[in-house]
Amino acid sequence: MRFTIQNVLIATDDGYTTTDVQIIDGKIAAIAPHLDVVGTAINGSHKLLLPGLINAHTHSSEMWQRGIMSPLPLELWLAELYDFASIDTEQIYLSALGTAVETLLSGGTSVVDHLVLIPGQELETIAAAVRAYQEVGIRAFIAPLIQDESLTAGIPSGDSNRTHEPFLRSTAATLEIIETAIKKFHRPDEGVSMLVAPTGIQLCTDALFEGCIELSDRYHICRHSHLLETKAQAKLALEKYGGSAVTHLNSMGFLSDRTSLAHCVWLNDADIAILAATQSTVVHNPLSNLRLGSGIAPILKYRQAGVNVSFGCDGASSNDSQDLLEAIKIGSILHNITDFDYRHWITPRQAIEMASLGGAKGLNMADKIGTLTVGKIADLVLYDLTNLSLLPRTDPIGLLVLGRPNNIVDSAWVNGKQIIANGQVTTINVEQLRQELFNRSQWETKRESPTVAEIEAHYRKVMGL
Amino acid sequence: MRFTIQNVLIATDDGYTTTDVQIIDGKIAAIAPHLDVVGTAINGSHKLLLPGLINAHTHSSEMWQRGIMSPLPLELWLAELYDFASIDTEQIYLSALGTAVETLLSGGTSVVDHLVLIPGQELETIAAAVRAYQEVGIRAFIAPLIQDESLTAGIPSGDSNRTHEPFLRSTAATLEIIETAIKKFHRPDEGVSMLVAPTGIQLCTDALFEGCIELSDRYHICRHSHLLETKAQAKLALEKYGGSAVTHLNSMGFLSDRTSLAHCVWLNDADIAILAATQSTVVHNPLSNLRLGSGIAPILKYRQAGVNVSFGCDGASSNDSQDLLEAIKIGSILHNITDFDYRHWITPRQAIEMASLGGAKGLNMADKIGTLTVGKIADLVLYDLTNLSLLPRTDPIGLLVLGRPNNIVDSAWVNGKQIIANGQVTTINVEQLRQELFNRSQWETKRESPTVAEIEAHYRKVMGL
Repeated sequence: MRFTIQNVLIATDDGYTTTDVQIIDGKIAAIAPHLDVVGTAINGSHKLLLPGLINAHTHSSEMWQRGIMSPLPLELWLAELYDFASIDTEQIYLSALGTAVETLLSGGTSVVDHLVLIPGQELETIAAAVRAYQEVGIRAFIAPLIQDESLTAGIPSGDSNRTHEPFLRSTAATLEIIETAIKKFHRPDEGVSMLVAPTGIQLCTDALFEGCIELSDRYHICRHSHLLETKAQAKLALEKYGGSAVTHLNSMGFLSDRTSLAHCVWLNDADIAILAATQSTVVHNPLSNLRLGSGIAPILKYRQAGVNVSFGCDGASSNDSQDLLEAIKIGSILHNITDFDYRHWITPRQAIEMASLGGAKGLNMADKIGTLTVGKIADLVLYDLTNLSLLPRTDPIGLLVLGRPNNIVDSAWVNGKQIIANGQVTTINVEQLRQELFNRSQWETKRESPTVAEIEAHYRKVMGL
Repeated sequence: MRFTIQNVLIATDDGYTTTDVQIIDGKIAAIAPHLDVVGTAINGSHKLLLPGLINAHTHSSEMWQRGIMSPLPLELWLAELYDFASIDTEQIYLSALGTAVETLLSGGTSVVDHLVLIPGQELETIAAAVRAYQEVGIRAFIAPLIQDESLTAGIPSGDSNRTHEPFLRSTAATLEIIETAIKKFHRPDEGVSMLVAPTGIQLCTDALFEGCIELSDRYHICRHSHLLETKAQAKLALEKYGGSAVTHLNSMGFLSDRTSLAHCVWLNDADIAILAATQSTVVHNPLSNLRLGSGIAPILKYRQAGVNVSFGCDGASSNDSQDLLEAIKIGSILHNITDFDYRHWITPRQAIEMASLGGAKGLNMADKIGTLTVGKIADLVLYDLTNLSLLPRTDPIGLLVLGRPNNIVDSAWVNGKQIIANGQVTTINVEQLRQELFNRSQWETKRESPTVAEIEAHYRKVMGL
């Protein structure tokens, strides 16, 4: 597969230049003006070429619940989600398609799916998501969401003497499923990578974390987890470990340069120093953190401490969209209110770098994707700068990050394969997907969650509400 | 002009119902199932009908600078804007068209344009904007942005003994222009209303406020102003009045039930009580407040105190979009991080009410627009619920507010006149607008602002940076 993008705008250190880009065998072969055309010629005129962005944290199947979840903090929201989230593998497939399409149409070429597993059909769940991502052609990082404690264990006990139901599956059985999944689905060269992905300290024992570390080392795969998303989790860590969750994870050896951690809202300066020292990656999910009232992750502090930061949409029931450019916009400007010194604020160019190279680093792929560099894999997105939402012409990256771009992805390639052309996904029938999503759903109003009713009083008490 | 929307979803107190809506002579004549078709029949099936939303604060001509403004706090950002914002009346016309189109395509049927005036061509500026809004057919509230102090007066002096250039025009001359504009352009029945709109306490003398109050009373028109957008302005108010800007404005008689105040970020509890007592309206511009690092307006406190709150996009150089649904989304969920008690959080339905009825109240139009009520003016928007970005089907208003809807406005009517049909603006040639915006602009990178260079050291010193 060979093609040459001609006369395209690309970013330089401090501006833009018009150039040609040659792609041969899935890789960027040359970047220079007036190159010979190899393969298909693509007209890049009035278009901007950027490395594909990375949706570094989501839960695809939450798409079935978007728009309807009550305004609740994570712990109660999760209880409501559990009550209504029963789905089948066909739905897993469809919501993975939907997540891939929305990510692609907002500049993403990779997605990290912290995938909720259907109990008893864990491998089938993973297979359905893999099938969807391979059909679309997006680069997929499947991080099966595992835990070995039951939901209520995720809420601090406070003074109460609560006990919790045992989790439905043993730690060993869960790890066995993950190992089978790694063997079966981990095919980085075909665009599907598996990650070990314990839910987080709030619902996992040390044994589960340790098993994940062992699998990660043995199979050379990356690690992913939620980390200190809410104040309740910080409180829980104190009850569980008598101290900081970050210190505890570090002492177990979970933190590393191939560990990415979603949220990281409630870390202190010592925790931040540990993330920097271990070269861990923070995945910032600003919209979800607002929607659930989790707080503002101290992203400017992370950047100042040298911690790598990337962006995620998070699942579509806590956002409720998979528009990556929206997450990048809000995840940049949100922090301006946390530091009066505007010299620390994130610029649009820095935001794009966080969403591309930052995402790649967290997935141990920085040598392969995340920048427009000769020799790197051609995960590329071509933006149409003549779209009304990007006019008048000013700074293209500024418009892309700070504006509200609509219908602006002209083309996208993953591994050099074109999967969007003329603004349309070429690999799957999006109209059929739309019909399926329509047919398998009903308009609803707010529902009553029995689990929320059950646990709310305890939650309010322990959180001092 | 008569039409009947059939089988359309509308919101009820706690859910949705499918009904017909009859519009006769620009007004809602009946809302009930199975009505006789009067005039054109509109298929409302799988669509949601809401009252048109109100973009309650913007500066249309800032569209020419969107995407390019440096990450700076308001006072320095404004200095940069002044250095590069030189435009002509044709550009005023085009950016008003662009602002109207983006507002409409995101559910708005009214726009409040706090319009920057070209010095020496003040009435021509207003005429150009009025022409644009009348051509599009959006309901327009033109609030000519006036001041009578020069830019540097907007920054606190601190210990320094600064003097400022006199403003280019006398207070009396400015008020005369506004009175002429009111006589010439204030035609509420034709969809164009004038507002008196001093910039804010940071750049206006008491004489200007008093003149505006007098005009407002004499011509029965509404009042609009910025209020305490930044910490610097709160500091300045202390220097200027020896106390609270809100107390000062109230003592002059500027606050009233037809006064809307943009931003209101730095108000204390006593100030909030004054806004409630005077029935003033707060216009929340969340994206601008983040982009400029102004802070989070205490919107939950306003609501608890009974202060009416509406939403604005603010000018497109501080946002940088006119997508009203984006402002509503962020302006709702942003506040979840300011109050742990989720029972105070803004629901999607409340957000829509703030953006419709709340906006109408602030413009003294609550008896005419802002709800689907028989007898009210037909400013209506019909949303296509089968769009991919609103699927799967869950709670339509939840999807609209919390999602990232794209291309979802099927139809819009202002005063019963259809101005969007099948997702397309019917009144102007949007493709021609796109071409004009393209042709009159150039891709640029960051520029150096001489005025920022001049005033930055003082700003940093006085703000303790």
